[in-house]
Amino acid sequence: MGSFREATTLTELNEDEFGAVLDAEWSVGGRMHGGYLLAVLGRAACLRTEPEHPHVTAVSASFLEPPDEGRAVVRVRLLRRGRTVSQVGATLVQDGRPRVEAHLTLGRLDDAGPWWAGHEPVVLPAEQDCVLASVNAPGADFPVPLMNVIEERIDPAHLAFAFGAPSRGGVIASWQRLADGSDWDPLSLLVACDPVPPVSADLGLPGWVPTIQLSAYVRRLPAPGPVRVRLTATDVGGDRMDEVAQVWDDKGRLVAQSTQLVAVRLPA
Amino acid sequence: MGSFREATTLTELNEDEFGAVLDAEWSVGGRMHGGYLLAVLGRAACLRTEPEHPHVTAVSASFLEPPDEGRAVVRVRLLRRGRTVSQVGATLVQDGRPRVEAHLTLGRLDDAGPWWAGHEPVVLPAEQDCVLASVNAPGADFPVPLMNVIEERIDPAHLAFAFGAPSRGGVIASWQRLADGSDWDPLSLLVACDPVPPVSADLGLPGWVPTIQLSAYVRRLPAPGPVRVRLTATDVGGDRMDEVAQVWDDKGRLVAQSTQLVAVRLPA
Repeated sequence: MGSFREATTLTELNEDEFGAVLDAEWSVGGRMHGGYLLAVLGRAACLRTEPEHPHVTAVSASFLEPPDEGRAVVRVRLLRRGRTVSQVGATLVQDGRPRVEAHLTLGRLDDAGPWWAGHEPVVLPAEQDCVLASVNAPGADFPVPLMNVIEERIDPAHLAFAFGAPSRGGVIASWQRLADGSDWDPLSLLVACDPVPPVSADLGLPGWVPTIQLSAYVRRLPAPGPVRVRLTATDVGGDRMDEVAQVWDDKGRLVAQSTQLVAVRLPA
Repeated sequence: MGSFREATTLTELNEDEFGAVLDAEWSVGGRMHGGYLLAVLGRAACLRTEPEHPHVTAVSASFLEPPDEGRAVVRVRLLRRGRTVSQVGATLVQDGRPRVEAHLTLGRLDDAGPWWAGHEPVVLPAEQDCVLASVNAPGADFPVPLMNVIEERIDPAHLAFAFGAPSRGGVIASWQRLADGSDWDPLSLLVACDPVPPVSADLGLPGWVPTIQLSAYVRRLPAPGPVRVRLTATDVGGDRMDEVAQVWDDKGRLVAQSTQLVAVRLPA
């Protein structure tokens, strides 16, 4: 099992181009995981803007064509370097074709708590009382190698879908750790921000939901220990679903959040 | 007073470049309104992808440098043309400098209701019982010309901030119409998605909050009539605030939603 650090290691080709090797462990049903791809793009952006602005604070990506495992190039364009933030464009290229197009804002995060918080951390049973997600899960019609590298424990109240009786509440909450034992950091939180399974599973819509666009914000440096993740949806219709993820650290502070628009196949 | 259509009219310079004239009416405190800028970029993207994919369904933008009123150029890059969606990059350029960098997904929307909805439309008093926002509002320390072109009526329960007693609930709800009398469409909904005043006003943080990144999804064609908009925040800290907007049409269906990360000045 590879570490997150190894799976996102880049080789500097020149100031604006980095070589990546996309690791098949960080995949879902034969497709590279979206949050992992954001982390690879984020790593390249950080290398471009360090040491002043070492942390990704916001990233928005359009998913154009699913990349394959193996070699890829990340092209970075510095759009603006300000006093407190840098803004960059980044493109993941494979076989000469853009696969993911993103723009990122980078700055310097700290671990101070919020001045105001509108949401309490999600409430779920203790970590050991939640259900460890597995690579070959009941109810899933494809393998999820990501579950070898992310240790995810799902609130059993949200797992009825795995037994053919989805709650249709539209919420899935889980504990997450990196399986390599390392603590979460601003880059790996981009993986936690894009949880598997999708909330459509809880709505009775099995199967793969490809992401069209995804935006994530990293709000502060996470405390050591697991994160709690709450995934919800607002509206499903017209073959589209939005998913909103909120990620709290072990001290109960919001450390990351994301919104994505995905394609779903609705019953006829 | 100009119409939305006039304020977003573009001149085709070539297949990938469009001339715009940014209209000072669509501004807040001397800065062009973010949602209006998205609509200008969206109009260019639509011109590039019509007739197959006439509607913006998702847009994510990074705000690099505030554009000035007056002439600007929108550069569009077709990233991918698929069967059901097109994806494009778009940059708003002024004086040779990129001011806003965006990527957009376009497709074809319809007016069918949701298959599943996780949120009820925001409940607020009848339109005539809400408070019409004005260009020079009590509690605002700058003029908001946007209120000449958007007819916005704010729930009086959320207006205590204007009298120095913010509720700190972190919600502002309003009715919105285009003042030119035209109905909302997928492009103008991008303006409704970026409401003024910011929710920070209700948290006791007066003043301008520049947007860093903003993502908006248009979910379906809106019914004629006003929209109801609910603006909330999740977390304020580290000089950053997120804002989430949800927009429902006159039939109570979610027609648009957005998430943005903005800079705030917190009390010392």
